[in-house]
Amino acid sequence: MASTPTAPLTPLPTLALPMAGAQEHERADAARNRRRLLDAAGRLVAERGVANVTMEAVAAAAEVGKGTVFRRFGDRAGLMNALINHTETDLQEAFLHGPPPLGPGGDPVERLVAFGHARLEMVDLHGEVLRAAESCAEKRLAHPTRGVHATHVASLLRDAGVSGDVQLLTDSLLATLDASLVWHQNHVLGMPLARIADGWTDLVHRVTRC
Amino acid sequence: MASTPTAPLTPLPTLALPMAGAQEHERADAARNRRRLLDAAGRLVAERGVANVTMEAVAAAAEVGKGTVFRRFGDRAGLMNALINHTETDLQEAFLHGPPPLGPGGDPVERLVAFGHARLEMVDLHGEVLRAAESCAEKRLAHPTRGVHATHVASLLRDAGVSGDVQLLTDSLLATLDASLVWHQNHVLGMPLARIADGWTDLVHRVTRC
Repeated sequence: MASTPTAPLTPLPTLALPMAGAQEHERADAARNRRRLLDAAGRLVAERGVANVTMEAVAAAAEVGKGTVFRRFGDRAGLMNALINHTETDLQEAFLHGPPPLGPGGDPVERLVAFGHARLEMVDLHGEVLRAAESCAEKRLAHPTRGVHATHVASLLRDAGVSGDVQLLTDSLLATLDASLVWHQNHVLGMPLARIADGWTDLVHRVTRC
Repeated sequence: MASTPTAPLTPLPTLALPMAGAQEHERADAARNRRRLLDAAGRLVAERGVANVTMEAVAAAAEVGKGTVFRRFGDRAGLMNALINHTETDLQEAFLHGPPPLGPGGDPVERLVAFGHARLEMVDLHGEVLRAAESCAEKRLAHPTRGVHATHVASLLRDAGVSGDVQLLTDSLLATLDASLVWHQNHVLGMPLARIADGWTDLVHRVTRC
């Protein structure tokens, strides 16, 4: 489980994907540097929770100067936004091009189960930042990232031979993975993440069985 | 379909139920007056959409002075909040004590279908005000009204013999009826409400079948 609640961070105007285009102009060493900082930040968030990760700690963990972190990300909110983009890009890479069960080639129902579990893991690590980013319903529902997830889930439902209104079933499934809802279940109601993950598996099977 | 978007109204600190306690001290004629105003406001909202209902029009429709409406509800936001409480109280009355298929005595799966359809009708009429009231996820998820709905849905799932994690399935079902999501499907994506209602029926059957 990640961390205790902290002050809400700035919403993420930059959580737009795919990220590849935005990074094309980075020089290779700058890109390596960025990835090293974000990997270090990700490890620290996983270990300590978002609330306890400082710019200084990230600099130390990545073995770069503090100034480099501030120049790169502006402030703590900027770093956390970049970290979510980084994690989201990895998630998309995994379900679009990675190995089964998440990636292509596996059974569509198992891929759907794996997608939900990967998203729940992301909410577990970055719940606070995601909640802040997704707190405005209009923005969340119109967000490009949600569009990528919806396309993926709808395509798996079709592959699984689901005969219902795939678009509406997709909305229901994604609503179940909503960061605010999962955070509430986990941190307010005290449901372990493993239970929420089992609930997802059960829901996917109910929705897809013929 | 109700109305075009308008400026967001004040969130509803008073959308707490049951309402009976709050109304006990009203004199009978004041209560009748209040109900007459809210019935008139409800009819106007259904006819014209929330954005086109003024305090003056409500006064005229209820055949009372404009001053009475302002004294009673303070301002337009106060009137709309009272109207949602009124509609929500009617909905709860219907599923707790009314005739089947919504009320007790009917088949639990049909009651679940009817509950969703009644909630969708309410979102259709009061979507803008509900969206404003429910825009903050923390408040929405901890709201007493949501608690009443969750208790009802969970109890119907158990009555229907559903063997899974009823609490998590309840959260998924209620997330599907979220005002912001339904508004987005209806007003942004242009899905007719009848399609959304059919989607709910299908989802309920998928979730409850053994």
